[in-house]
Amino acid sequence: MDKTQIFKHRVKRIKRLLRRQGDDALLLSGPANVTYVTGFMGDDSWALLTANAVFLLTDSRYTEQAADQCPGCRIIERSEPMTKAVGMLLSRYKSVGSIAVENSISIAQLKSLRKNVKKRIKPVAGLVENIRRCKDDDEVKAIRKAARIASQALVASLRKMKPGVTESELAGLVEYHMRKLGARPSFETIVAFGPNASRPHHQSSKRKLKKNDTVLIDFGVKVAGYCSDMTRCFAVGKPPGLFEKVYKVVHDAQSAAIAKIKAGVSLKAVDEAARKVIREHGFEPHGHGTGHGLGLEVHELPIVGPKSKGKLEIGDVITIEPGIYIPGKLGVRIEDDVLVTKTGSKIPSKASS
Amino acid sequence: MDKTQIFKHRVKRIKRLLRRQGDDALLLSGPANVTYVTGFMGDDSWALLTANAVFLLTDSRYTEQAADQCPGCRIIERSEPMTKAVGMLLSRYKSVGSIAVENSISIAQLKSLRKNVKKRIKPVAGLVENIRRCKDDDEVKAIRKAARIASQALVASLRKMKPGVTESELAGLVEYHMRKLGARPSFETIVAFGPNASRPHHQSSKRKLKKNDTVLIDFGVKVAGYCSDMTRCFAVGKPPGLFEKVYKVVHDAQSAAIAKIKAGVSLKAVDEAARKVIREHGFEPHGHGTGHGLGLEVHELPIVGPKSKGKLEIGDVITIEPGIYIPGKLGVRIEDDVLVTKTGSKIPSKASS
Repeated sequence: MDKTQIFKHRVKRIKRLLRRQGDDALLLSGPANVTYVTGFMGDDSWALLTANAVFLLTDSRYTEQAADQCPGCRIIERSEPMTKAVGMLLSRYKSVGSIAVENSISIAQLKSLRKNVKKRIKPVAGLVENIRRCKDDDEVKAIRKAARIASQALVASLRKMKPGVTESELAGLVEYHMRKLGARPSFETIVAFGPNASRPHHQSSKRKLKKNDTVLIDFGVKVAGYCSDMTRCFAVGKPPGLFEKVYKVVHDAQSAAIAKIKAGVSLKAVDEAARKVIREHGFEPHGHGTGHGLGLEVHELPIVGPKSKGKLEIGDVITIEPGIYIPGKLGVRIEDDVLVTKTGSKIPSKASS
Repeated sequence: MDKTQIFKHRVKRIKRLLRRQGDDALLLSGPANVTYVTGFMGDDSWALLTANAVFLLTDSRYTEQAADQCPGCRIIERSEPMTKAVGMLLSRYKSVGSIAVENSISIAQLKSLRKNVKKRIKPVAGLVENIRRCKDDDEVKAIRKAARIASQALVASLRKMKPGVTESELAGLVEYHMRKLGARPSFETIVAFGPNASRPHHQSSKRKLKKNDTVLIDFGVKVAGYCSDMTRCFAVGKPPGLFEKVYKVVHDAQSAAIAKIKAGVSLKAVDEAARKVIREHGFEPHGHGTGHGLGLEVHELPIVGPKSKGKLEIGDVITIEPGIYIPGKLGVRIEDDVLVTKTGSKIPSKASS
């Protein structure tokens, strides 16, 4: 399928859902949803789907880029505030009676929309997000490429992973190599040395790598809008004895979860598969979910956690990232990106670990 | 004033405004507002101000960090969704009848709050944002330090600014040096070579620097939560003759705007001072505003643009960033950070230009 066909297909699926819920138009404000439906990769732009057209509302900073990226859209260059521009555009479409808006927009935006748009406005949840779950071949290819570039950036940074380097510098170095390879980080790289790794959301600091130490790196790259997300742990010199043991358990937990993965399996079962291994070895499993979907956003549907409902579907791309965190001592997390298929799973990401 | 006193003082000012509008409590969800009132620098946490206390609602990932950063707050570790945790907390305070919430929260969050909180809920706009405008000495010191580190990072990157380097690599290198210096980028560094600089929001690409070329770098650093934001332009080899001319005009426009700055001057007048110089030389002035406030966020109040209302106030820290953009040819923007004082202005940022 060529690019224009892909977007047409997406729009068709969304319109079917729209009609089913009795709405005439859909206003998209979430950047990833706008990208998904139009191909546009800039900021501050909304999309409007009506029965016959897809409009991209943008401003003069982006019209050139929009013309380039959105051949299937009608580009509206606005100079007034967004909600006013939406009102002006919709006033020309008498046949549109009710319009669905994303429930992620702010109260202020809704208030302003109600002032400017003389139609029935109906907040909806997750309409496009649910469709985004199932990745097509091109999307998987982009995630795979993102994972490959991330791995290359890590490998290129390894020679500087020696005593004296700070967490912050190493994070900067990994991201520098991502950029040198023509990509961008998909989120701020987390580098945590020694006991700092016990905080899953540690912010890279001035802490220096010691002679005998451990390293956790959580990093990802964005390619053509699509994200990868990986975590690797390393030992430098002679690390605490506990590290090797914990690493093995986490690795086994990840393997157990990945082995479970195929379309139709419950999300909860995948989560539990990882936790069970960790518990059986006498450790406390990760407080966070075992994984999450990824695509245009680094966190998207589905969530793979103990409270998840629903099942894996063909085309889901999820992370599997169990961990063991022992405050004051160490933290180990291993994270890879997995594509859900009919019979099993493929791993687009595979960095040296 | 020690740190605890600073937060007490901020809370006192906010409470005065709250009482004036007849509310008993304020729920803060915007990360910068939460940081401003509590000192907390993590994610996914909200603050609740009542007559007698400031609560920080966070989760197990952040309780350690919160205890450290928020000595004046009561830390609530939640395991349920945020809006439910807010409901549970507020149910214990019978005296709280009405609660103000930020109008930047989403429709979904408001709906969930209404379900969980059995009080009158009133959306408000910009309550803390307006107080945040006026920076105290410590805040200015942090911005100044951020500007200094950004300058150092740029200088350290200059030796690689030679033909063959890509925009993306140079952006990565500047950010690497920020990290090496222990700071973080306050936004994704923009590097634009040659005609690419005519797009103010250009995304750094694989475009290589040529032998005779121009460079625009828009970059900033975050220190202790506070942002700097600067833009510099360079010529490499023998750039197009137009570049030097345009550079001089933009520089003069910036100087004219900065010369206008003191408390009491209208924001519009500062904006116009820059545009006037550019127009007088026969060029089209920048389509964006001449400047914006900066602090905990890289864009905050006030906006310095042609439609701005209001005046400069003592303690405002603003950017002044006029530009001339000639599509297909070049773009020049010069941006510095300026502190508004009683009698004039000081420039915390001063990088080689």
